[in-house]
Amino acid sequence: VGPPLWYSDRLYDQTPPGVVMGLAWTSMGGSALYVESTLESILTLNSTPCLNKTGQMGDVMKESTAIAYTFAKSLMALEYSGNKFFEKAAIHLHVPEGATPKDGPSAGITMATSLLSLAFQKPLDPTIAMTGELTLTGKVLKIGGLREKAVAAKRSGVTTLIYPEANLSDWEELPENVKEGLKGVPVAWYSDVFNVVFGDISKEYAKNVW
Amino acid sequence: VGPPLWYSDRLYDQTPPGVVMGLAWTSMGGSALYVESTLESILTLNSTPCLNKTGQMGDVMKESTAIAYTFAKSLMALEYSGNKFFEKAAIHLHVPEGATPKDGPSAGITMATSLLSLAFQKPLDPTIAMTGELTLTGKVLKIGGLREKAVAAKRSGVTTLIYPEANLSDWEELPENVKEGLKGVPVAWYSDVFNVVFGDISKEYAKNVW
Amino acid sequence: VGPPLWYSDRLYDQTPPGVVMGLAWTSMGGSALYVESTLESILTLNSTPCLNKTGQMGDVMKESTAIAYTFAKSLMALEYSGNKFFEKAAIHLHVPEGATPKDGPSAGITMATSLLSLAFQKPLDPTIAMTGELTLTGKVLKIGGLREKAVAAKRSGVTTLIYPEANLSDWEELPENVKEGLKGVPVAWYSDVFNVVFGDISKEYAKNVW
Repeated sequence: VGPPLWYSDRLYDQTPPGVVMGLAWTSMGGSALYVESTLESILTLNSTPCLNKTGQMGDVMKESTAIAYTFAKSLMALEYSGNKFFEKAAIHLHVPEGATPKDGPSAGITMATSLLSLAFQKPLDPTIAMTGELTLTGKVLKIGGLREKAVAAKRSGVTTLIYPEANLSDWEELPENVKEGLKGVPVAWYSDVFNVVFGDISKEYAKNVW
Repeated sequence: VGPPLWYSDRLYDQTPPGVVMGLAWTSMGGSALYVESTLESILTLNSTPCLNKTGQMGDVMKESTAIAYTFAKSLMALEYSGNKFFEKAAIHLHVPEGATPKDGPSAGITMATSLLSLAFQKPLDPTIAMTGELTLTGKVLKIGGLREKAVAAKRSGVTTLIYPEANLSDWEELPENVKEGLKGVPVAWYSDVFNVVFGDISKEYAKNVW
Repeated sequence: VGPPLWYSDRLYDQTPPGVVMGLAWTSMGGSALYVESTLESILTLNSTPCLNKTGQMGDVMKESTAIAYTFAKSLMALEYSGNKFFEKAAIHLHVPEGATPKDGPSAGITMATSLLSLAFQKPLDPTIAMTGELTLTGKVLKIGGLREKAVAAKRSGVTTLIYPEANLSDWEELPENVKEGLKGVPVAWYSDVFNVVFGDISKEYAKNVW
């Protein structure tokens, strides 16, 4: 009797390119929070780039999306200049579930990863989740609720949790039973995230993917 | 004297292409909720694609329409690349009745089906109704009020009800007299919906319909 | 036990071009307030100039950004007419942290410096911080909370603090232990700021940087 003692909010067993698991922190505790990016229309030489957003995002989260978009575009331009994806792509970014209001900046690195995963056509390992505010230059800032987020991640089968280095002391204070089987990866810059999730992408591959 | 003991809110005996029966859940119980899509202007090689919406939709339902539109376009591009409908079509999507405020994400699969039905010029079997939130990648998420919706569907002559697999336990708890004569089809992805309603569409047909 | 007696809110050990440390004054005291500017897309001969802003800025701060943008553009046009940066650049200006509402005009010179640092591709000395309202003609106006800002600057490793000349008496009233190791630079016009941070930029360099 009563609510289930254990449940998962995993939506995806396998994540297609553009889908990344983030984590939310609410008054009810932590939960998985996916970010989905897809193309709105076929990529052509003449298509006009844009980013449309849905998912009942508040102002801060909408700005977070804009920051992630600018950052992903500049990373691509600087590191993989042969890849023209963001110059042509009409992108739709959605955060299910559609009726739940969401806000806050802590999905920044999740959004950037979602956009880059779509651009590289590279699906993520579905056992990776991440949380962290992103600045325009790729700095990763501290977030709230790491404990609740770690519990939710573990419940959903996550084995690698990427979190801001500024939350290192929060991580160290996690109970052993939460950390067991959950590898924490502290990151100070987005490049640290990139190495974990896209480290094996060659310049050659990136240039030719679209 | 008093309200009728039995009534139907079926608007269509036969549904033209673009019209699909969904289901609403309100404080008054469940009811049929049609989604209608038509062309705003003649389809030409030079027409500009767009999606206009009416029907007193709230924010969540408007976003739901945008998600269904992006999803339908990408499904078409990926599976039926010869069909140029969404690249040219100025579409108007309406949810009668026009004076009733409506909201929520649970018409997602109904909207996607409405748009695809128009694109394929394929009318639906009018005894099929459906309810389910849709994500950008085609995942079907849990909805509320399945019991009330099932009662309303049956009252309106529905014999096949498509609902999210995540609501399977709600379905199983329905009284036998509701389930009698009503076939439930649980779906986890939009491809499951597609197989039920458009399963007989060939690539050849889709390429030449417009 | 209790909060740390000493902490820094320095985000950057080295600041890339476009990033400048400003200072905020809140009911909690002073704190570092970075301004980040980056390019939204690659600079081409055909790109359309614009300035997008994020960071939960209030109306006054948004106007401050517009003033800094106009001022930076006119400085460039008057002094370095060979540099076409602002005629082509789609710029994104962000003020971390994304969830903190910010307002007020005192980041004016910081914003102008951020935009010029991006335009010149010239990183700033990370031990410099600045605060001051900017007018369209480059006049620097008095700000509030210099004492709290100076304390925050020092705590974050700043050794040079640029402040409005109109706040000279506030500076002189600072306790000796705050001023120790902190060089104050009073400025009446933006040209004074310019000489400190960009004084070594030649017309030749500015003309050829983009």
